[in-house]
Amino acid sequence: MSNNFADRLITLIEEKKNPSVVGLDPAIESLPASIIEKYKLPAHGKENIFQAAAEAVLEFNKAIIDSVCDIVPAVKLQAAYYEELGAEGIAAFKETASYAKAKGIITIGDVKRNDIGNTCKAYSNAYLGKAEIFGTKVQVFDFDAVTINSYLGREGVEPFLEDCSAYGKGVFILVKTSNPGSEEFQGLTTDKGKNYFVMGQLVAEWGRGLKGKSGYNCIGAVVGATYPQEAAILRQSMRETLFLVPGYGAQGGSADDIADCFNADGLGALVNSSRGIIFAYKKHKDEKNYSRYAREASLVMKEDISKALIKKGIYRW
Amino acid sequence: MSNNFADRLITLIEEKKNPSVVGLDPAIESLPASIIEKYKLPAHGKENIFQAAAEAVLEFNKAIIDSVCDIVPAVKLQAAYYEELGAEGIAAFKETASYAKAKGIITIGDVKRNDIGNTCKAYSNAYLGKAEIFGTKVQVFDFDAVTINSYLGREGVEPFLEDCSAYGKGVFILVKTSNPGSEEFQGLTTDKGKNYFVMGQLVAEWGRGLKGKSGYNCIGAVVGATYPQEAAILRQSMRETLFLVPGYGAQGGSADDIADCFNADGLGALVNSSRGIIFAYKKHKDEKNYSRYAREASLVMKEDISKALIKKGIYRW
Repeated sequence: MSNNFADRLITLIEEKKNPSVVGLDPAIESLPASIIEKYKLPAHGKENIFQAAAEAVLEFNKAIIDSVCDIVPAVKLQAAYYEELGAEGIAAFKETASYAKAKGIITIGDVKRNDIGNTCKAYSNAYLGKAEIFGTKVQVFDFDAVTINSYLGREGVEPFLEDCSAYGKGVFILVKTSNPGSEEFQGLTTDKGKNYFVMGQLVAEWGRGLKGKSGYNCIGAVVGATYPQEAAILRQSMRETLFLVPGYGAQGGSADDIADCFNADGLGALVNSSRGIIFAYKKHKDEKNYSRYAREASLVMKEDISKALIKKGIYRW
Repeated sequence: MSNNFADRLITLIEEKKNPSVVGLDPAIESLPASIIEKYKLPAHGKENIFQAAAEAVLEFNKAIIDSVCDIVPAVKLQAAYYEELGAEGIAAFKETASYAKAKGIITIGDVKRNDIGNTCKAYSNAYLGKAEIFGTKVQVFDFDAVTINSYLGREGVEPFLEDCSAYGKGVFILVKTSNPGSEEFQGLTTDKGKNYFVMGQLVAEWGRGLKGKSGYNCIGAVVGATYPQEAAILRQSMRETLFLVPGYGAQGGSADDIADCFNADGLGALVNSSRGIIFAYKKHKDEKNYSRYAREASLVMKEDISKALIKKGIYRW
């Protein structure tokens, strides 16, 4: 199997006939009551509230991963919900990624990191490459890809590109985000086109040397499901770029909306849903079966995307 | 004393007659040999390389803080160098911030976080406000301010603004960064001015309701020392905005270059130096006295800035 990130991801999408990713955004206040009861102090017998919370999140994540790992190609971990639990939360972040990887699925760290030079290299060492500690190269976090923000320019991207090439990893760079206010800056018209369009062209350019056998390269773009027209414009000019698509489901994007993120080959996009999957249990009365509801919601999402791709005439399986 | 972040920072700048900040960017491979020897495995007697590295960083940071805390108003912690050491590194990140705070100086977390909605709120909870865990509000990291990247728009800023107001905290939003490649995107001309200029205007607008008695507001801007002309343009249109200025020293910005980041009142900018201060020992033969050299370098920097402000006729002490 090719070690190129795009090839690895597409192989799993093809195997599972499913271009969707489950977002592991375990907001502590939204965990099922049975987990909260088990871990909350003093029931848990621990003094450290962060440790207890991190263990609750880890139990939850593992159950979700177990329930969806045969049907989705990837999971995306949103760093904010782990950072909110301090260093203990970061330990759960790391362990969740390793657990998912051991189950054979792609792990995406949604960290949106950004910096320049040596600092950017340190981020890339942490998430994609290896850090050198006391003269030994060590792996820190076990991610296949991370999200990055390249407002800073090429010095904020290059160290990641090097590690993508050296370690078979990927990045998804913010291009057009799913929030209503993204227009205010990303939608500004420059002399080279709208800001998001210019960023898209930079992303395509940066990825050019990193194409896999699949025809896709390992430098992807984040393109929100809530802007189908903009996505269609980007898709036309970025044929070899994988789109990571947030905004489906809870944020209002429909399967029809995301269809334009795909190429005519039925590939090229990875659609994320977080709350709509992992907290699907909230619509039901038995929260103890939260992982079963997550699986059901994930299957419904798969079906929903399939129908939209069939409607567009590009369903390939 | 006012609880407004800008007022708190300016009070300390006035007390110390010093608008500079020491960047705690403890790249593990650059720590003094005596610290490396003490902590590297197996000398340290620990199995966990991340734990040993985090302890080395913490010892180094505490010594630097002890040596400069009476002369600088603030320290800035660059998250990447702690994330590179995993969860153990994050524990050192947290403990370093608490240690600096206990010494009476302002702590800035250089995290450049960015996201929207609930996720953005989780970041703000982690770094500026409080997280709610098992029904209890708890402080996670003890920072007075953080850096953020607002490519995503207002939904990536609003939760931070709320916590700035509620907890007397601040943010510095990336406007014009110090790297050569920042021109490629930030320098694009839009129908509302160059991208960095538009971002500057948004920053000024977002900060408007959060002005302190000092006349400055707690929503600051990151403006690189390496772009003095751009800084001067921004300064003119953002009189009430504090500038956090990277790029002095190691990155090539001179004291004359940063002078245009100040207002005519001699205030309004906080100039950062990281490697040039904390690794000043590298120019000398006795690395064991690294903290003394950091103090000397910090005093030289203070003097250097003073001279540039005197030359400009705005030195105020």
